Amino acid sequence: MIESCVMKVEFRVRSYELDSLGHVNNAVYMNYFEHARISFFRELGFGLRAYIEAGNAMVLAESQVKFRRPAFMDDLIRVETVLRIEKIRLLFEQTIYRDSEVIATGLNTIVTLDARGRPCAPPAELVERLAG
Amino acid sequence: MIESCVMKVEFRVRSYELDSLGHVNNAVYMNYFEHARISFFRELGFGLRAYIEAGNAMVLAESQVKFRRPAFMDDLIRVETVLRIEKIRLLFEQTIYRDSEVIATGLNTIVTLDARGRPCAPPAELVERLAG
Amino acid sequence: MIESCVMKVEFRVRSYELDSLGHVNNAVYMNYFEHARISFFRELGFGLRAYIEAGNAMVLAESQVKFRRPAFMDDLIRVETVLRIEKIRLLFEQTIYRDSEVIATGLNTIVTLDARGRPCAPPAELVERLAG
Amino acid sequence: MIESCVMKVEFRVRSYELDSLGHVNNAVYMNYFEHARISFFRELGFGLRAYIEAGNAMVLAESQVKFRRPAFMDDLIRVETVLRIEKIRLLFEQTIYRDSEVIATGLNTIVTLDARGRPCAPPAELVERLAG
Repeated sequence: MIESCVMKVEFRVRSYELDSLGHVNNAVYMNYFEHARISFFRELGFGLRAYIEAGNAMVLAESQVKFRRPAFMDDLIRVETVLRIEKIRLLFEQTIYRDSEVIATGLNTIVTLDARGRPCAPPAELVERLAG
Repeated sequence: MIESCVMKVEFRVRSYELDSLGHVNNAVYMNYFEHARISFFRELGFGLRAYIEAGNAMVLAESQVKFRRPAFMDDLIRVETVLRIEKIRLLFEQTIYRDSEVIATGLNTIVTLDARGRPCAPPAELVERLAG
Repeated sequence: MIESCVMKVEFRVRSYELDSLGHVNNAVYMNYFEHARISFFRELGFGLRAYIEAGNAMVLAESQVKFRRPAFMDDLIRVETVLRIEKIRLLFEQTIYRDSEVIATGLNTIVTLDARGRPCAPPAELVERLAG
Repeated sequence: MIESCVMKVEFRVRSYELDSLGHVNNAVYMNYFEHARISFFRELGFGLRAYIEAGNAMVLAESQVKFRRPAFMDDLIRVETVLRIEKIRLLFEQTIYRDSEVIATGLNTIVTLDARGRPCAPPAELVERLAG
């Protein structure tokens, strides 16, 4: 089992992400989590685009999300991400903060697929960069 | 504890719901679940709009989603929803099908808030309609 | 110049399409227009998926949208679409109604691209079906 | 007639904004334009939230968008915005760039509504800040 450091990404809530209560809509949190995972890979230097262009895929298999507090227009949001690799699963533990307040938590499980669409081991390049 | 019958809602995957792999993006499933919950209330005859206009709110507190298979453009999708009420929580057990195939499952927990934003008992009208 | 009959598609506004004023967000109208164009092709019997899988593309080149009235949760919306083909452009004249009220109008110009990404004549199959 | 300076806002294309061709979906450009207008107001120091909480509204009346080139995952996007005020209309001339390439242009017309929902003069605070 390999565990990463915490990676942080920060951005503001945009107007079109709000629902009719003026809160960030629940589906948008899934976008935030995905955005943070992609940022995680970029910061780590892992070549996600090349990995996908080689015919592989990373797909979300499971999400457990707890919505703690609403987020509002212009809020400065921070997503903290830790990645643990367990055999063929990438477990992303993700927490969304506004300052020190927890807005939401997500445990998001990614599986990696080879060019035939079958589950496969995580890319060696990713494992090396995490360990390095 | 009160449990509803199964409510079904059916629709087609729309082009703008796809990601760059040609699959329905994971966040869109949250939209589908929400759409099915709203349809559930409409079919039951529960007046959600009046409930909200009276100052109350229903907010999603937790989601557990398992993504089983990808869904594609034009797929005819069916969401089946069962509602169980446990004290102050509405538990929506939701399954997304394409014909007999399970595409995704979601256990979505809603809490009801009074006009001051505090958790409160589910609306009596809803409980009566479920029991009736 | 070839002009189609009016094609109609009908659906309800969904909860997650609203902005913080409780109106359908302006970007969602672009989704509605796209959904109606895809439905147009399906009703006409034109094989859009095969066309794209053969390496061609249809891309939106220009949109002129007038937003007349807000649309709200649960509104039953009808999009009427007329297609005119002018040389290499597909001109979709699209109007969004709620009953007899005009909610928005859109003039959306599509160009067709060949497998090398260059503008090309509209697919013969489409022209034939329109003329037929 | 009052005309503003150019205001610039920069951000990266996010994964969930792509369509099945791997291009930013057309509706997302409407989000980008809206995001840039909100950023424009924030940078100018205009209190949009207070204006809305006082019962007023700003609504999009018309959009003319030209889509020039596709935008892709991770592209660094820059939206440049100029605001001209003509009587009761706010005309936002907006251009989306990737480096020096024009990705899309938008002419977006906003009208201001008073607490009764009737068109009204643009807020004095906004006019003063533009002139100042």
